[in-house]
Amino acid sequence: MCTLNIKPHFCLQMQKFSKEELLKLSADLFIKMGASDVDAQQAADVLVSADVRGIDSHGVSRLVGYVGLWEAGRINMTPTIKIVREHKSTFTIDGDSGLGLVVAPRAMQIAIDRATEYGSGWGAIMNSNHFGIAGYHAMMALPHDMIGMAMTNATPFIPPTHSKQAMLGTNPIAYAFPSDEELPLVIDLATASVARGKIEIAKREGRTIPKGWMVDKNGKQSQNVDELKDGGMLTPLGSLEELSSHKGYALGSLVDVLTGVLSGANYGKWVPPFVPYLPLLPDLPGKGLGHMVGAMEVEGFRPAAEFKTSMDHWIRSFKSAERIDGDQEVYVPGEKEYLVGKEREVHGIPINDKVVDDLESLKKKFSI
Amino acid sequence: MCTLNIKPHFCLQMQKFSKEELLKLSADLFIKMGASDVDAQQAADVLVSADVRGIDSHGVSRLVGYVGLWEAGRINMTPTIKIVREHKSTFTIDGDSGLGLVVAPRAMQIAIDRATEYGSGWGAIMNSNHFGIAGYHAMMALPHDMIGMAMTNATPFIPPTHSKQAMLGTNPIAYAFPSDEELPLVIDLATASVARGKIEIAKREGRTIPKGWMVDKNGKQSQNVDELKDGGMLTPLGSLEELSSHKGYALGSLVDVLTGVLSGANYGKWVPPFVPYLPLLPDLPGKGLGHMVGAMEVEGFRPAAEFKTSMDHWIRSFKSAERIDGDQEVYVPGEKEYLVGKEREVHGIPINDKVVDDLESLKKKFSI
Repeated sequence: MCTLNIKPHFCLQMQKFSKEELLKLSADLFIKMGASDVDAQQAADVLVSADVRGIDSHGVSRLVGYVGLWEAGRINMTPTIKIVREHKSTFTIDGDSGLGLVVAPRAMQIAIDRATEYGSGWGAIMNSNHFGIAGYHAMMALPHDMIGMAMTNATPFIPPTHSKQAMLGTNPIAYAFPSDEELPLVIDLATASVARGKIEIAKREGRTIPKGWMVDKNGKQSQNVDELKDGGMLTPLGSLEELSSHKGYALGSLVDVLTGVLSGANYGKWVPPFVPYLPLLPDLPGKGLGHMVGAMEVEGFRPAAEFKTSMDHWIRSFKSAERIDGDQEVYVPGEKEYLVGKEREVHGIPINDKVVDDLESLKKKFSI
Repeated sequence: MCTLNIKPHFCLQMQKFSKEELLKLSADLFIKMGASDVDAQQAADVLVSADVRGIDSHGVSRLVGYVGLWEAGRINMTPTIKIVREHKSTFTIDGDSGLGLVVAPRAMQIAIDRATEYGSGWGAIMNSNHFGIAGYHAMMALPHDMIGMAMTNATPFIPPTHSKQAMLGTNPIAYAFPSDEELPLVIDLATASVARGKIEIAKREGRTIPKGWMVDKNGKQSQNVDELKDGGMLTPLGSLEELSSHKGYALGSLVDVLTGVLSGANYGKWVPPFVPYLPLLPDLPGKGLGHMVGAMEVEGFRPAAEFKTSMDHWIRSFKSAERIDGDQEVYVPGEKEYLVGKEREVHGIPINDKVVDDLESLKKKFSI
């Protein structure tokens, strides 16, 4: 976090915004692009939840990208989102090229309804677009005492083990578990070893990146961050073959099949890139990109109160696990994001200069 | 594979057995321990499937461990396996301290039945024991044109990021997807960076292990394999903090909560160890160890024939992804295990001397 007195160089350019400002700006923009009020507010809520939780790469910094895709005719702001196939606890949604930020929460609501009726609900979604942070959709289950799940495929940027061709996106997996007194357990991880943003920050700060973060266009391990703009790629979780990159590759594949193949969306190298200047490949096997969402009612397995008390116990036992270094806390998944969120809701959300400039341009462009 | 002419040193001690021999020996042993014929054959089938697929650490080499647990009174060979709670597509099973090798397939069959009726079926299982390879249970879904899932928690042997206390097992995640002409896609991965067996083989061969495979009892990165017997531990997938070990920790946590907390089994540091000489911790929060199994009928999402054709297309596109090195094949998850299985079904299953000795002792002990 940047404060008034201590300004490390990565903070120098940070201007702060309130959550409400960012929500309003985002919603106004989506409305100008043609979204209904309800859809615009939903999309803004997903987007800004990323900024609040400190996942800046998936928040308002993406607005310029969404606009680009919309201008390229790849996003439909007034989609007819409908179930095209179903069987009690399962269903497939056609997102009609809508914003993933709108399509995914709609599908998740249906999954929650199905879970109320059948114990669980699972939706595969095709013909969608980038859906923001996976964790948002999974967390929709929490107030219902349900376990939530969300996954998506994404712009291909990771080669399989032994390959030099980008076949998988950062394909995240998110699960949210309700708790009682403790913060809920929220798992939300990309199946890449590190985010592209982390490499770009290292570059900006002139730091050497660790071995394993990226490969060059020939699939060879590289620590030259400039290669990223010249065909370089991210690595699957595990990073190096000797550290089991095949497991990250398998997890990315799992997500690609559940979100892409099962729904009838595109998959593998055919997943539509987020940036409009990259063309779609010919012979697309499906429609748009794919998500999967799910909800399981806890009561179908254990009394919810009992489960939530056990979750508290689980969380406390992990937080109090013996430390390597007394000063270095053991966090549970999702805890850091909650702590950042608490801080940012009070003190504002730092947005870097480049993104502020982008937002100003968008405001001008759309006369907001 | 060991052949008659070429004997690398790790093959020197390998005697070969047919699948049928190993199945009969295992089943005979389970019957002597008190299992019914049906249960004994089921357990043997799960166990030997690991040997066939080349996952030797989870096959007949474990028999001596199961016997030890049974002698310690921690396995009930005539369990009453029953549903203790349910809600249409979801249910919880009490395994009555039975062999996981019997309890998990029973639960998976129920999940498949529920998926036929409700589109999907999800079972949390408590009061169970080691269930062999997760992939076996997931693959039970394949003949039904369903996607199968199986997970289990296991003996704590992995510390969370920043901790030096073993809180998670190798907690595997398995998914199986039906295909048409291609081999089915079978994902089956432990959420540790590498298996303990891999470190032990390196030790036997006098090789240096890569940085990231293990930590010493203080949680510090170590390449001294002897530390493994002196409080050393495995690392979560990701290996090192700089390579995102927190993601492997999150995946292990995901499995622990779905299998342990959701079912009412033990979790975290309390998961009962596989070896009988390690005592159970006091104040156990649940019963036995926990699994989760699931099945989703493909037809509920897409026509099964269409899905399976798409799976073939997915598999072929990954297998033909551009190679880094022309000679080094790009495999899809589960492919290597199928190839090993094909070879071993014809030419026999190599079993190392130490395990052959164990099996001979067991035969003597049980007058087989």
